[in-house]
Amino acid sequence: MSTNHHMTPDEFREHGKRIVDWIADYYEHVESQRVLPDVKPGEIRSSLPELPPSHGEAFEHVLDDVDSLIAPGLTHWQSPRFMAYFPSNTSFPSILGEMLAAGMGQQGMVWKTSPVATELETHVMDWLVHLMGLPEHFIGNGVIQDTASSATLCALIAARERITNGQANQKGVPDNLVAYTSDQAHSSIQKAARIAGIGDERMRLIPTDEGFRMDVEALQGAIRADKAAGLTPFFVCAAVGTTSSMAVDDVAAIAAMARREADQVWIHVDAAMAGTAAVCPEFRWIHNGVELADSYCFNPHKWMFTNFDCNAFWVADRKELVDALSILPEYLRTAEHLSGDAIDYRDWQIPLGRRFRALKLWFVLRHYGAKGLRDHISDHVALAQSFEAKIVDDPDYDLVVARTLNLVCFAHTRGDAFTERILESVNASGMLYVSHTRLNGRYTIRCSIGGRDQRQRHVDAAWNLIKQTARSLAKEA
Amino acid sequence: MSTNHHMTPDEFREHGKRIVDWIADYYEHVESQRVLPDVKPGEIRSSLPELPPSHGEAFEHVLDDVDSLIAPGLTHWQSPRFMAYFPSNTSFPSILGEMLAAGMGQQGMVWKTSPVATELETHVMDWLVHLMGLPEHFIGNGVIQDTASSATLCALIAARERITNGQANQKGVPDNLVAYTSDQAHSSIQKAARIAGIGDERMRLIPTDEGFRMDVEALQGAIRADKAAGLTPFFVCAAVGTTSSMAVDDVAAIAAMARREADQVWIHVDAAMAGTAAVCPEFRWIHNGVELADSYCFNPHKWMFTNFDCNAFWVADRKELVDALSILPEYLRTAEHLSGDAIDYRDWQIPLGRRFRALKLWFVLRHYGAKGLRDHISDHVALAQSFEAKIVDDPDYDLVVARTLNLVCFAHTRGDAFTERILESVNASGMLYVSHTRLNGRYTIRCSIGGRDQRQRHVDAAWNLIKQTARSLAKEA
Repeated sequence: MSTNHHMTPDEFREHGKRIVDWIADYYEHVESQRVLPDVKPGEIRSSLPELPPSHGEAFEHVLDDVDSLIAPGLTHWQSPRFMAYFPSNTSFPSILGEMLAAGMGQQGMVWKTSPVATELETHVMDWLVHLMGLPEHFIGNGVIQDTASSATLCALIAARERITNGQANQKGVPDNLVAYTSDQAHSSIQKAARIAGIGDERMRLIPTDEGFRMDVEALQGAIRADKAAGLTPFFVCAAVGTTSSMAVDDVAAIAAMARREADQVWIHVDAAMAGTAAVCPEFRWIHNGVELADSYCFNPHKWMFTNFDCNAFWVADRKELVDALSILPEYLRTAEHLSGDAIDYRDWQIPLGRRFRALKLWFVLRHYGAKGLRDHISDHVALAQSFEAKIVDDPDYDLVVARTLNLVCFAHTRGDAFTERILESVNASGMLYVSHTRLNGRYTIRCSIGGRDQRQRHVDAAWNLIKQTARSLAKEA
Repeated sequence: MSTNHHMTPDEFREHGKRIVDWIADYYEHVESQRVLPDVKPGEIRSSLPELPPSHGEAFEHVLDDVDSLIAPGLTHWQSPRFMAYFPSNTSFPSILGEMLAAGMGQQGMVWKTSPVATELETHVMDWLVHLMGLPEHFIGNGVIQDTASSATLCALIAARERITNGQANQKGVPDNLVAYTSDQAHSSIQKAARIAGIGDERMRLIPTDEGFRMDVEALQGAIRADKAAGLTPFFVCAAVGTTSSMAVDDVAAIAAMARREADQVWIHVDAAMAGTAAVCPEFRWIHNGVELADSYCFNPHKWMFTNFDCNAFWVADRKELVDALSILPEYLRTAEHLSGDAIDYRDWQIPLGRRFRALKLWFVLRHYGAKGLRDHISDHVALAQSFEAKIVDDPDYDLVVARTLNLVCFAHTRGDAFTERILESVNASGMLYVSHTRLNGRYTIRCSIGGRDQRQRHVDAAWNLIKQTARSLAKEA
């Protein structure tokens, strides 16, 4: 093979079809693999050559190495045995969308550099508004971000600029701005506040009630105390589905109260995991009050069968977002931008460049349709319900908090150390992957349902494995 | 087709292979397409149904719509007629890497959630250090970001935390920190300073010399004036290859002087476009002084045939980066993290989640090898040289600045309005896409070489089109 060589289209056809088959085979067999790989830190690297090749290699060798060097190091997020964290679903239509987007090689920083990436994005974001019953004023105001972390950061900066009338971008962040979220909200909120120059000391982590929902009275008290101290409340992030326990904050009460106390406060709603549930009318209550929010996001890359990364982010008023994030050097000026006829999504996000992420979401929405998505989501919630019932029925286990949607949080009655040993042991078996949190200080196993291929038998197998593992550990002790 | 239905592996095989063929066909014919599509803002959206489908659709229909609705709205970044902005290259090996990564569905936020995504990333980043002759102390300290914008933001925050001893994350950003870059540096530097709470008023845009390189004496003067005013210089960003003219700042002189004047200042080097040139020993001079930097980045997604997004970012001391960006809630704790044996890349970036981007870069490096990359880069520079020679030889055109590497900046002698009409007219023809900037106030066309499939005939055709267009426009006048 010549070194100064680009792979030919025909070679690509051949290797591409081999990879398509590889992927199909992978999904046919992923369930039979250890869900967590049996590797130690450094092991994978030690099998790779220290230096890059001086001459190009035959692609067949590379594909062989995928099987021998790469596959053994995968954590199988797509396995129905994966019940850790939250799901990070793919689906075949989404993979096809990623493939095609990679082939098209678009970079949609401004409308002109990819009219279709821009317009399809606005369009599928509008579709989601209809599909999920989101507020009408989100229409035309949606953008795809990589993650909820980035969406939160954008919201926080838009809030910062609104309250300072654009002066923070000019002069730096005044030391009187205060942000609020619950002590159960995702760590990315606090991280965003650090990045944006607010800092931990002006990021209030409001206590939560017995269901781990933000205590609205405590929030009110904090806002009043800050105002009394001469500070300016400017940002409240409500969580719809917290990471630890899937708690759903009372957005309506939070927003109404916060606006009364501090009328310029920005309300952001982070529904990263839970949001997808709103495709089902019976779960739409989670979004009560979102119509009062300045911004909202959820992750199709979690529960909507769309490859990571794909966060769906809306603002009530796009001008506030764009004013906060736009910067226009000469080399990015286009007639379409100056006329105001087109969206330049670079002004809606932290980075400049952007991929054609709308394509995979369009594929997913068309393949499943509203009904397909609804059926899957309600199936998953029913599976979680069945798992919850097993916990409730077993005197050796406590349901640490009542289930919301698809997350079941439980602990063994023998205490934290024993519960942790169960988790470590089931994860080490390779038969299941669950992760943990602490709720009111108690070590808690989180069983997160929502993988694309999860069925009753997987949930039953998970429960049986946990029970048997606990029994074996108890005998050893 | 049932609506509560996931595409089967066999259906995926069929559609996937059709998409592989679509992509191969695309590259076989992209050159004959209009490089800029003939669409107006809103036209694409108007052809799409207002509501998402209530029931899933047959995937064949979706693929048909790709041809009729999506393809006509593409700007062909991958066409050899694309000479606007900077290249955003794909290549077949990279597309294969994106396909496979999409299929594997990894989310590598921590080592445990994808050991192979983490370790292959560290490994290919080390390969790049060897391949490009980057400083030895970058070994083990590399991470893939989405874009240079994000890398700069990470560098700026690490700098902010180093100078404040971590206090900015705690208390907010003090109002005495000053950042510096040149008036030719990318707008993302200024945007990062806004996001991170520095603000325009403490972001100095240092004047440049006749070659649009940062004026080191002016930087020194600015640093001294700020110190005299009681301010604290904390961040200098040097540009290796500016967007407007590919100017290469004298990193060695900047770093040495800045460290003398302000010993805690963080030196970041942004080589987003130009960095790839260092695969060729003859262009390695662009990195003189990078060994003095605290951080450095370039974009394999520009000139290294690797799909957007893929920015390669290194720090001299990873602890400074991790200390600035780490936040560890209970639900993300893992034994491997606590032991210090494994890298958790979530602590090296703004978002939490991350894709398996190392795979495409590994495919590219193995397919081309060092020699293949070198040959392509030196070919591209020779093509730019040949285009520059045509400009120099033609009395109707001025080379606005001497060419560096693969960018040629020129204007017609009849003035700005005429040069702008040439650009608009050639872009409207669909036969070429070039973009513009202003250099010393002069409207300038940028002809950017470096597309994967660009050959002498494309450069010659571009020049002939420009010349003929100018002649026609002159006759009309």
